[in-house]
Amino acid sequence: MFVTHLECSSTGERYEAGKPHNLSSAGKPLLVRYDLDAVKAALTKAVLTSRPADMWKWRELLPLPDRAAPVSLGEPETPLIPLTKTGGPNLLVKDEGRLPTGSFKARGLAMAVSMAKHFGVERIAMPTNGNAGAALAAYGARAGMRTFVICPAETPAINVHETAAYGAEVYVANGQIDECGRIVGEGAAAGKWFDCSTLKEPYRIEGKKVMGLELAEQLGWELPDAIFYPTGGGTGLIGMWKAFDELEAIGFIGKKRPRMFAVQASGCAPIVRAFESGAESAERWENAATLATGIRVPKAIGDFLILRAVRESGGAAIAVEESEIAQAVEDAARDDGFLLCPEGGAVLAGWREALKRNLVTRDERVVLFNCASGNKYPLSDKAGRIDLNNVDLAAL
Amino acid sequence: MFVTHLECSSTGERYEAGKPHNLSSAGKPLLVRYDLDAVKAALTKAVLTSRPADMWKWRELLPLPDRAAPVSLGEPETPLIPLTKTGGPNLLVKDEGRLPTGSFKARGLAMAVSMAKHFGVERIAMPTNGNAGAALAAYGARAGMRTFVICPAETPAINVHETAAYGAEVYVANGQIDECGRIVGEGAAAGKWFDCSTLKEPYRIEGKKVMGLELAEQLGWELPDAIFYPTGGGTGLIGMWKAFDELEAIGFIGKKRPRMFAVQASGCAPIVRAFESGAESAERWENAATLATGIRVPKAIGDFLILRAVRESGGAAIAVEESEIAQAVEDAARDDGFLLCPEGGAVLAGWREALKRNLVTRDERVVLFNCASGNKYPLSDKAGRIDLNNVDLAAL
Repeated sequence: MFVTHLECSSTGERYEAGKPHNLSSAGKPLLVRYDLDAVKAALTKAVLTSRPADMWKWRELLPLPDRAAPVSLGEPETPLIPLTKTGGPNLLVKDEGRLPTGSFKARGLAMAVSMAKHFGVERIAMPTNGNAGAALAAYGARAGMRTFVICPAETPAINVHETAAYGAEVYVANGQIDECGRIVGEGAAAGKWFDCSTLKEPYRIEGKKVMGLELAEQLGWELPDAIFYPTGGGTGLIGMWKAFDELEAIGFIGKKRPRMFAVQASGCAPIVRAFESGAESAERWENAATLATGIRVPKAIGDFLILRAVRESGGAAIAVEESEIAQAVEDAARDDGFLLCPEGGAVLAGWREALKRNLVTRDERVVLFNCASGNKYPLSDKAGRIDLNNVDLAAL
Repeated sequence: MFVTHLECSSTGERYEAGKPHNLSSAGKPLLVRYDLDAVKAALTKAVLTSRPADMWKWRELLPLPDRAAPVSLGEPETPLIPLTKTGGPNLLVKDEGRLPTGSFKARGLAMAVSMAKHFGVERIAMPTNGNAGAALAAYGARAGMRTFVICPAETPAINVHETAAYGAEVYVANGQIDECGRIVGEGAAAGKWFDCSTLKEPYRIEGKKVMGLELAEQLGWELPDAIFYPTGGGTGLIGMWKAFDELEAIGFIGKKRPRMFAVQASGCAPIVRAFESGAESAERWENAATLATGIRVPKAIGDFLILRAVRESGGAAIAVEESEIAQAVEDAARDDGFLLCPEGGAVLAGWREALKRNLVTRDERVVLFNCASGNKYPLSDKAGRIDLNNVDLAAL
């Protein structure tokens, strides 16, 4: 266990490790800090490579004490797959749909629920647009906890049903995710449960940062030129940015960083608006609407951290239209046999937009994050019908 | 490349490797044979373990020549996950839902399409109950082939839509899978396409056998006491049985074999009926019906190979009721946070039935195959509703 303390991401105020936390006294996310010199002395690339390829191979850079068993549903390293026809051999997708419950939310919730269990928490709750709630419920079931999930009415049915199947108490509400989050916060204040909302709990980001750790190792410890990330709450983007610094501190990578692109839908683009206006934080986006529900987040508590990482990296925040999202999903499936989720489609559309604006070139190595299995989202029916007793083979 | 020839599974007649094949002249499946002495000399466990953990690490035991690049969508080793509360620490699920297109069909079709591309095939077809067609279409798209898929009207919508998204021509027909297969066979005979039907093409089984290879390595080269396998066409069961012999021949495992349990739904149980009657092959099951569509196969061309493997292993063929399938899915999700597909639920129900009949004990190490992501199947709605402006926290 190499954790030294937690730290307010805004004021730098220190908090004691080894107990449950939510936000700092300034109302900002807490970040876990490690004794990176000690990690550097303890961990070699060769040892890492010899371990089973899952998220728990990174234990020295994770907050769970060695003696505590993780709450796990099998979290293997996710593959990097080139979209050769769509973008050439340098355009890679990291397919996060391979994780438990079919989305990258599993990384953060495996970590958060493992820590909550370690601390003796028995009741957990969160607001969700779908995949996070399902992952919370699955890991909550595995840990033997009672789980409460509140989601907007537009949440995909598959997520609602899946979450309920894991035995969670699921409520569908007439509001956006931040409004659902308010109720979760009130319940936590009333002692009904522990609040596992994005970045209001400091360990999810530690699970999410493993995306950045894996990526570095998969690419031979040479980070890509650019990363395109579907940005709702932004935990993964912030987490990867943190991971890269930690990897440099332990001597596994050099100073090179990818340009970080935060992709949002034009119907809910608070980070893009703040990025373009030069603001350090983002105003709430009213009347948020996009079929890419995972990035329908009107107000992100980590807004300033997302904006800071994007700017420090020399990247950008980019908004894409619904029609561009749909087109991207259609193209990658038909041409490369890869079914992106809508948020993954947004990211491919964002890369296309960045190409147009000369923010990235075709020969640069780029990683797109496909945050969930495309099979969790409805598609249209394009099947024909045939009568088996009367087939015209010539017409097939 | 260690392939020596192909061999009729019924008569032993030899066929030349290095070209496309369908059934033998006796109308039976062909099996790929290797120079296993040469593989033994060329491959060590240490070399294997040092390779990236995906299906292509087994190249010496696969038919694709070294110089040919596989058609790949990222096929990592799938995790083994204990269902601790449902069955104890020895009850493991191999979660095949982590593969491309969310099912184990990806293994066989990655292999078959890689071989077809290597041979210059441009048009491929198959009948399917859903997942196999989606995998064929995805790998077909990746290989730049035209893909034709014919499926029964009861095929889940998600599979039909997914298959069409990959650009395949999908036809929904008024018959069972074997009747759809007849049309595919007629089209192949007419030169319209290459027939990729289960076991009518000899390379799918080589991809599927990797399940057995992985399992052996994951369990430290000690096979489990029993394997429960959802049995439609049976390619995976036959393939694993073949894999175990190959592993013994190259000195990686000893003589111990798992007892193989073929699980079917009571609404479509031709293998169970044949097993119980002592028959060497299975009659067609009329009026087949089960919600576990992946095992709704009235007549399997590899019936005699399934029955032979089950009997040689000391296992059994077991039928389970629809209500037992649903209960198993519900229990594993609620208690262990693992959402089985219906066929995976059937397998858990089959294990429960085998316990009752004393065919297996609770302390034996058992592997259940969950053949697809549970998220590909509809679940019922158990969500509550809340009014965000009027929440009664005490009631939550």
